[in-house]
Amino acid sequence: VPFLDTATRPSFSLDRLSKVSLLGTADLFCDLYCLEPGQAQKVHAHGEATKLYYVITGRGELTVGDETRLLGRGEIAWAAPGEPHGASNPGPDRLVLLVVMAPNPNPGAGS
Amino acid sequence: VPFLDTATRPSFSLDRLSKVSLLGTADLFCDLYCLEPGQAQKVHAHGEATKLYYVITGRGELTVGDETRLLGRGEIAWAAPGEPHGASNPGPDRLVLLVVMAPNPNPGAGS
Repeated sequence: VPFLDTATRPSFSLDRLSKVSLLGTADLFCDLYCLEPGQAQKVHAHGEATKLYYVITGRGELTVGDETRLLGRGEIAWAAPGEPHGASNPGPDRLVLLVVMAPNPNPGAGS
Repeated sequence: VPFLDTATRPSFSLDRLSKVSLLGTADLFCDLYCLEPGQAQKVHAHGEATKLYYVITGRGELTVGDETRLLGRGEIAWAAPGEPHGASNPGPDRLVLLVVMAPNPNPGAGS
């Protein structure tokens, strides 16, 4: 479906960060990352892809390279290929991130 | 810079839709499209890229294929390679779209 509403799609897990696939092609995937307070995606890197995070709701500590910033709604963090990046939710609110990665490392699955 | 605030970046033109480049690599570009009421991006297609629109503020008529929907904040429209797509602002408010296209057809310029 070429239309979707991100407000209806968040899904959280008490165990760990929850990734909700919104769309995927060979060119990119677009997910929601849904983080309860205290949850995180560890800093990591992709040698062959660009990734961006857009804060939809809540506040998140986003790391790119050796810098970490607390970002709120409407703010973006992005990592060029090879740049370390990660995200964590210091709370107290839930955090929802719109995440795009291009190209899609796993086109069959969407993320 | 790997961090930016989309709230501080919109720029409008009375002449036509205004595109504000936020970031670009070979893998993707991310722009803001800023549309005054009555402005539009004509329906068009890219044979080799996936494009997505996310509504940041306002409401927009987004077309993908032969379907047009009125979308508000938090909603997404996306077009697979070759699918016709376009956007228009029926008003009364200004429309700001977060736009991602992958791969970047013009890596040197960012959009």
